[in-house]
This record gives sequence, structure tokens and C-alpha cells, in this order.
Amino acid sequence: MRMAAKVCRLALLQLKVSTCKADNVSRAQNLLHQAVVGGAEIAALPECFNSPYGVSNFAKYAEPIPGETTEALSKMAVSNGVYVVGGSIPERDQEGLFNTTTVFAPNGDLIAKYRKMHLFDIDIPGKITFKESDALMPGSGFTHFTTPFATIGLGICYDIRFPELAQIYAHKGCELLIYPGAFNMTTGPAHWELLQRARALDNQLFVATVSPARDPDASYVAWGHSMVVNPWGTVIASAEADEKIVYADLDLGLLHDVRRRVPVLVQKRLDLYQESTPRL
Amino acid sequence: MRMAAKVCRLALLQLKVSTCKADNVSRAQNLLHQAVVGGAEIAALPECFNSPYGVSNFAKYAEPIPGETTEALSKMAVSNGVYVVGGSIPERDQEGLFNTTTVFAPNGDLIAKYRKMHLFDIDIPGKITFKESDALMPGSGFTHFTTPFATIGLGICYDIRFPELAQIYAHKGCELLIYPGAFNMTTGPAHWELLQRARALDNQLFVATVSPARDPDASYVAWGHSMVVNPWGTVIASAEADEKIVYADLDLGLLHDVRRRVPVLVQKRLDLYQESTPRL
Repeated sequence: MRMAAKVCRLALLQLKVSTCKADNVSRAQNLLHQAVVGGAEIAALPECFNSPYGVSNFAKYAEPIPGETTEALSKMAVSNGVYVVGGSIPERDQEGLFNTTTVFAPNGDLIAKYRKMHLFDIDIPGKITFKESDALMPGSGFTHFTTPFATIGLGICYDIRFPELAQIYAHKGCELLIYPGAFNMTTGPAHWELLQRARALDNQLFVATVSPARDPDASYVAWGHSMVVNPWGTVIASAEADEKIVYADLDLGLLHDVRRRVPVLVQKRLDLYQESTPRL
Repeated sequence: MRMAAKVCRLALLQLKVSTCKADNVSRAQNLLHQAVVGGAEIAALPECFNSPYGVSNFAKYAEPIPGETTEALSKMAVSNGVYVVGGSIPERDQEGLFNTTTVFAPNGDLIAKYRKMHLFDIDIPGKITFKESDALMPGSGFTHFTTPFATIGLGICYDIRFPELAQIYAHKGCELLIYPGAFNMTTGPAHWELLQRARALDNQLFVATVSPARDPDASYVAWGHSMVVNPWGTVIASAEADEKIVYADLDLGLLHDVRRRVPVLVQKRLDLYQESTPRL
């Protein structure tokens, strides 16, 4: 017997991000409104949607939460009657700067806040070198939230390289993981889709990633390709490089079917894993 | 500075498996000899290489270890001067039947034995239903071994769907995982390559899978596509459906490069994972 399907329309807003914060927020507002006209019940913005991504930009664009950008997100949620996953913004608080996602309910309440816990420090000579930890502090907690449609876990970009994050969210009951993210022209073609499909299949849940649109003139060129993968590991919707809204209808009935047919989540050998799992 | 490369030639023997055990072992011997002529230093056979895969066959073909098949494997290792990863065979011991991999060193010694720990129990209506646990007992331990070329961890087929196994082997220092396996015509095209690439990329090690060749007349039709994936998640060698030897030269220098460039294995947030990881 198939369970009654609970379907939710998700929209990923692959926004083109410029150096002007007010302009970024205003264009996010327009794109969000279009998405809701298109039937979206949950809409998600990209990583660093209000400012250009880069170590030298974080301090310049950072703001507290609540602050001007998150207040705008709250208003967008209310005026459109939609859940808004606010991509991420550089956040300033007393401890320092963070790369932070906020989520607003249709009534405008802040219902979740997540700070990127794995900072993007890589060094591929001649291709891409980046050290996010030069400017940012890492977050220290998992964040998931519940909507009438699904229970949703949050990660940001480089977090997707760490399977433990997704495994822990699956264990907490998440049915959809949303990763605002900005892979680049080296790691994007190599790993962006693979990582999403792996997280989705291994944990038998939906995975969505939201990238900024590609701007070849930016100092950090994003790969784009915002994408939704279903619990069977199949890509069900995706963008190319340009600004675009990606829609996907998420059928939780499929999630339950996959989990019943290939029941890996209940076949795990927790009796054997625990003594061999790395600890501090 | 790149470390001095340590390269090893691995051969995957995608053997066609019939209902005649003596014939299977003899053809494995021939294929192994060819592989060594081709330069193989480690050669691996498929899951259930001495008998047709199927719940009703396990008891009929099972034998103790040591027994006729593993004695033949030991001799093959000695006469060819090669490491032999003996795919798997149905093993009978006092507790019951197991799906078991044995590994022999070039001197003929049994240096590793691994019993499949996640049994293949799935039910995809109209496509594939299989319940390995009707006939087999699950293993209860991880097995890795060391060669002059690499440290190698073992899994069998369905085990590859469980990311924890590969994560634990990576933590134990493995540089190559070998999974003898026989995916089918439903799960093969959907997941075989994806799972290998995910395990390789997430753990930044080499992954090899060894399937029987496809026999469309068999009761269980194997997908084939024995494959080697490097630590960047790229497929570096693979077969189609027919009997074939797949060679791959594994350069451990690449493994170290990948781990230095994208150092996820040392960036894990063990401080955060441990309290949230599922336990019994």
C-alpha cells in the first residue's frame, strides 16, 4: 500500500549576485514573488545571496541577525505567504563573523538559523585556493525545522562534502536537506552533482542545492546548476549557469517507497559501527 | 612537494560464472594467469565466483574454509606470485552459512577473511526481490589487510550501500576498498557507479568493484561493469557486461594530493558528530 502522497512544490532561486547589497535583496524579492506565482510553497536562495562571495568581502557586507537583510526576508515570507530559506549571508555577532542561513515561516517568524560548520579551506594549485577560516568562525550546531510539507535539515556548500552531517539529519527525521552553496569551476563539474546524489541515495531523502547564477566577471565564479535529487538518487530538476527558478514537486510517498523497498536505514549495523567510529 | 608515487597494478577479473563449481574455479585460474601476464600485482575475483548467486544455491555450493575452493585460490596465488582477493564464496561453518571473501598472499597464506555484514534483503515489486538472510548469516567484523602497495579494506556487494563501512575503513588507514559484488539489472544502472564514486570521493581513497560477467540466462542476472574509481571520484577503468579483465594502475601519490588539496578527512567536526550519531 502506497501512503497518501504529500507533495510540496519547492523553488530554488538561482539569483545573480552583484556587489550591491540593496540590489541583491531587491532582486531576490522579485524572484521570490515570481516563484510563488509559479506555485512555490518553499523557496530557497543561494549561499551569500546578498553579497559577493569572497574572504575580503565578508566583513564589509556582514550584518547582525536580525538586521536589514533578514528583516527583508521576513517581510518577503509574509507578503508572499511562503516559507523562505534565506540562502546565507555573512553574519556579524559578538564572537565574530559567520556564514549563516535563516529560515522564515509564512507568518514572518524566524524559525531556524544555521551557521556553516565546515569552513571552505582548500588549496588546489593553479585552480582554486580559498581559506574561508581567515575571515569566518565555524558554527557549532545542526539545525532542522518542520513545515507542514516536510522536515528539513540545513547545510551550506562545503558542508555537503561531509557525509556525517546528512547522516545525522536523516537520523533526526529529515526528509529534505537544503544546501545553499557556491561550488566553483573546478569543484563544480567534478563533484557538485555527485555529492548531492550520494547524500540523497545514502540517506533516502530529497536533497536540494541552491547556487548563485554564474558571473564570469566575479572574483569567485560560481558553477550554478542548482539542483534537486530524489531519494532514489535521481536528479529531478536542475538549472544551467544562468539566473533561473528551478521548481520541483517533492513527493514524500516516493521517499517512503524507497525506504520500504531498499531498507538500508533500518539495516545499518549500529552494533558494529559504534566501536569503530572515529571520536575525539 | 608531491610524495614519491607508489603505483600498483590492480586487475579485476569479471568472470562468467556457471553452475559448475570446478569449471568456475578452473576458469578463474586461467583469467588470473592472464592478468598476471598483464602485469597485475593484486587480482580480485567477483562475489560468489565459484557458484551461481541465489538463495537456493548457497547451501548446495557452500564449503568450509579451508576447503577445495580456497585451497585452489592459495595455489593460484603461489604459482602466479600475486595477491589474490578471492571474490566471495558461500562458506559453511558450525554457525551456518556466510558470504565470505578470502585473501591470499603470494606465498599462499590466507591473510584476510571477511564475511558480508549487511545481507541483501530488498523488495522492489515487479523488479527484484531477494532475501539473502533466508539462507545466510551476517558477518560481524571489519577486515582490512596490508600489502607492500596499499592498505586494503573489504566489503561485499550490498555492503557498499552503507557509507559507515567505508568511513570506518578510511579511519583505519585504508587506501583502497575492494567490493566483490553482483548488482542486478534494476539496481545496477541506478546505483552501481554512483555508490562507488561516492565512497571514493567522500573517503578520498580508491574503490574497486568486481562483478561476475552478465549471463542473461542465469536466475539472477548481474549488471557487470566492474570498475575502479580514484580518490577524486573519477572512474579510471571499467568493463561492460561481458567477461573481461579490468586493469588499473593505482597511484597513491594522487591519494595524498587529493587529501592535501581538499583536506576533508582532517576537517571533520568530530566534536559535533559524536553526540548526534545514532547508537543502539
